[in-house]
Amino acid sequence: MELTLRYIAESIGDPVIGDDQVLIRGINSLLLAEKGEISFLADPRLKDQIKGTKASAVIVKELTNLYQGPQLISPNPYLTYARVATIFAPPAPRFPGISEKAIIGEGTHLGKDVSIYPFVYVGQEAAIGNRVILFPGVYVGDRVTVGDGSVVYPNVTIMSDSIIGKEVIIHAGSVIGSDGFGYAWDGDVSVKIPQTGIVQIEDNVEIGAQNAIDRASLGKTLIQKGVKTDNLVQISHNVVVGENTIIIAQAGIAGSTRIGRNVVIGPQVGVSDHLEIGDRVMVVGGSGVAQSISPGEVVSGFPTMPHRLWLKTRGHVRRLPKYSERLRELEDRVKELEEELKRE
Amino acid sequence: MELTLRYIAESIGDPVIGDDQVLIRGINSLLLAEKGEISFLADPRLKDQIKGTKASAVIVKELTNLYQGPQLISPNPYLTYARVATIFAPPAPRFPGISEKAIIGEGTHLGKDVSIYPFVYVGQEAAIGNRVILFPGVYVGDRVTVGDGSVVYPNVTIMSDSIIGKEVIIHAGSVIGSDGFGYAWDGDVSVKIPQTGIVQIEDNVEIGAQNAIDRASLGKTLIQKGVKTDNLVQISHNVVVGENTIIIAQAGIAGSTRIGRNVVIGPQVGVSDHLEIGDRVMVVGGSGVAQSISPGEVVSGFPTMPHRLWLKTRGHVRRLPKYSERLRELEDRVKELEEELKRE
Amino acid sequence: MELTLRYIAESIGDPVIGDDQVLIRGINSLLLAEKGEISFLADPRLKDQIKGTKASAVIVKELTNLYQGPQLISPNPYLTYARVATIFAPPAPRFPGISEKAIIGEGTHLGKDVSIYPFVYVGQEAAIGNRVILFPGVYVGDRVTVGDGSVVYPNVTIMSDSIIGKEVIIHAGSVIGSDGFGYAWDGDVSVKIPQTGIVQIEDNVEIGAQNAIDRASLGKTLIQKGVKTDNLVQISHNVVVGENTIIIAQAGIAGSTRIGRNVVIGPQVGVSDHLEIGDRVMVVGGSGVAQSISPGEVVSGFPTMPHRLWLKTRGHVRRLPKYSERLRELEDRVKELEEELKRE
Repeated sequence: MELTLRYIAESIGDPVIGDDQVLIRGINSLLLAEKGEISFLADPRLKDQIKGTKASAVIVKELTNLYQGPQLISPNPYLTYARVATIFAPPAPRFPGISEKAIIGEGTHLGKDVSIYPFVYVGQEAAIGNRVILFPGVYVGDRVTVGDGSVVYPNVTIMSDSIIGKEVIIHAGSVIGSDGFGYAWDGDVSVKIPQTGIVQIEDNVEIGAQNAIDRASLGKTLIQKGVKTDNLVQISHNVVVGENTIIIAQAGIAGSTRIGRNVVIGPQVGVSDHLEIGDRVMVVGGSGVAQSISPGEVVSGFPTMPHRLWLKTRGHVRRLPKYSERLRELEDRVKELEEELKRE
Repeated sequence: MELTLRYIAESIGDPVIGDDQVLIRGINSLLLAEKGEISFLADPRLKDQIKGTKASAVIVKELTNLYQGPQLISPNPYLTYARVATIFAPPAPRFPGISEKAIIGEGTHLGKDVSIYPFVYVGQEAAIGNRVILFPGVYVGDRVTVGDGSVVYPNVTIMSDSIIGKEVIIHAGSVIGSDGFGYAWDGDVSVKIPQTGIVQIEDNVEIGAQNAIDRASLGKTLIQKGVKTDNLVQISHNVVVGENTIIIAQAGIAGSTRIGRNVVIGPQVGVSDHLEIGDRVMVVGGSGVAQSISPGEVVSGFPTMPHRLWLKTRGHVRRLPKYSERLRELEDRVKELEEELKRE
Repeated sequence: MELTLRYIAESIGDPVIGDDQVLIRGINSLLLAEKGEISFLADPRLKDQIKGTKASAVIVKELTNLYQGPQLISPNPYLTYARVATIFAPPAPRFPGISEKAIIGEGTHLGKDVSIYPFVYVGQEAAIGNRVILFPGVYVGDRVTVGDGSVVYPNVTIMSDSIIGKEVIIHAGSVIGSDGFGYAWDGDVSVKIPQTGIVQIEDNVEIGAQNAIDRASLGKTLIQKGVKTDNLVQISHNVVVGENTIIIAQAGIAGSTRIGRNVVIGPQVGVSDHLEIGDRVMVVGGSGVAQSISPGEVVSGFPTMPHRLWLKTRGHVRRLPKYSERLRELEDRVKELEEELKRE
């Protein structure tokens, strides 16, 4: 596919300075771009790379004289990169129709233009929306619904009664709706608490690879609109994750915690159970959240504290050996002073 | 299914105060329960919710006048909730018999009333016990044994020679018996050490979703009776996990470590290799265990210390910037004192 | 298979002291070895076990009089163990040829002597090398290449365009080439950045179970020759992992970070994005790497510091409650001194 720069610019709604008739066939980084590709300067630290780029056009925030070709001027080059890349991105591959080597259970409804690969198993009374793609090895349990336009990558497991919204993407190997971790101790052994709730994933959510999202013990585990999770994320039973929140790789959210909207949970963060994490909170990677956090706070550490305080304490921790010496020295000096005063 | 409260109470062995002829069709939380459901007050902090509940009966520790309907009096309402929920829980769905789209290897023995879904692969000379359910996408290697009544959820991999006990549950996506991580360095490259041991999982164990439990290099990795693991747990080669121990999400146990009975390993905990963790130890979430721990201890931190000490140190870490100021101030004051004394 | 000790010794190139005609049928630990097996003393702390072993021969660094049978003298008994175990290790089981229950896409080339199990799906225009084994439930996307002699265990997903080298092992459940985690914020929602790069895994790499290795946003995520990863490892888009580097369980490497050669990343380590980790660096388990690290450094902590410094600070952290008391005491004493001096 080759498009004129003008066509691209008009699709995005940003102006071009220079020759807008140049043909573009893809987008690439400043270093990797070849003739015929457009590139972008989103990170000002990479400014020097713009001089040597072979790209036939660049997306920039402000016109630069470091580059001679046509420039697409965007208030947010990173966002424009995302949009231009979307124009050129190949669509997910589709099996044409429903494979004879897939199993579709009784009473299950399949929408229009679905793509169901071989070795897919769909249980009974499920509802698969229009244009949904189910890749090989996907398991869809009884009574699951998957909304229009959703894509479920290979070897994903969606357990019974889960509700998956529209335009949801679930990456390979993830498990949705496994039992929550609930036991009562009877004095001798752990007695399993049946996990009879469900998982609901709303529209436009993207779940990374290798996630584990548990069904509720009672009620539902809820992933709201626009949430994005990275790989190897754990979401326990009865958790609620608010709209547009981002959870980065290997983070884990314990049972019944409610996470607000537009929150960022950093990589390898742990969040304890039954907490309230307010809207727009940012939890820095590697932190352990042991108490609820008010909206808008930026926290880190284990347990968490305001990120600025944490940054301060880190320097002090490194200096503890010195502080210890200074403390001992002071004790000696004070003792000497005390003795001197006594002598007088 | 509808049961009288009396029938339920007699099954559990707890008394009812009030009308025991009321019909119950399920159990739910105080907030979610509808007419016809029973509910429970296990967490005293939720006491206020009992006033507004629509439940037709409640499980309580002591008779309460906050609720007008019949009350089932239990010394441990949480445990009673588990038991009542078990009465109402739907059984795992079963494929009727052995799917023609499953592969069963030569010399493999299948017990009575097994349920083997399509796309299951069982290798040669394996032994699958009575009533076992193998969901789609399950791989069972050569010579594996799976005991009576066990349930293996979709896309689980059980590598060759593993021994799985009776009434074991393995949740979706888990891997049992992958190679342990063992290499010898020959000066140029890592030389793989063949992992020729096995994994043995005893009766009544429940393995969460997305676990990785490695086979032993020599001998066996052993998960003893009644152990429960949450999701995304890593258990390395030659580890022993003692009876009824609980390992919470995203924790990892390094090679050859022996964990005792009734231990609780919190979420995201790391335990180093070749350690002994005594019976009834509790390791608080996020901790890093670098040395063996005596029975009954409660530890946290990185590396771990007694939990009480750790709690104390946390407050001090937050105050380090203040301590640093106080130290510098003291030094100034002592210096002044010293100079004053010299002047005299 | 039974081999003379002499045959084994000559294969390895190490001398035997004692009867080299003894027949050996396997290798085992000192405690588990039976008659007919060889054992090894690699860890000097296990020296006492050599006295009671039933092994018919032992691999030792120096001749020991604690054991009466024949001894194979090796400068590196652990490496020799690896090599002898390799002689006896059963090869991975092979499906004979290409299962009729596998799907091979159009235009895909299969090498000689491949073993393709039932329920394998290979997309279009892929290239599968000689002797490759694909276990049940493996998904191989369009245009993927898998080099000669590689083994892909059950339920692994390899997304389109990935390049897998020769003699690569990928353990069960791993996902190669899922989308990197990249979004641009448009003020309302996260706009997905198409991840159009690839993953390249070079020769002799071993990937553990349950890994998630993301494709690049642009360009490639690169795992170089001889790298070994343990289970549940996260490698984000555009990461480069240098030759022979080892990444232990549950570690995560964030986007675009470059890791050098012969690095050891400990368990549960997190490495931030866009860093340079020099050759031969060791990052101790549980650490959080927030800045680039020079070659050869050994670091730990969160954020990391030289490991020796970290070890020192740990002791001081434990003593913080005491230090706090001593600080307060000093303040009292200095105050008293000041008042005394004033009184004079």
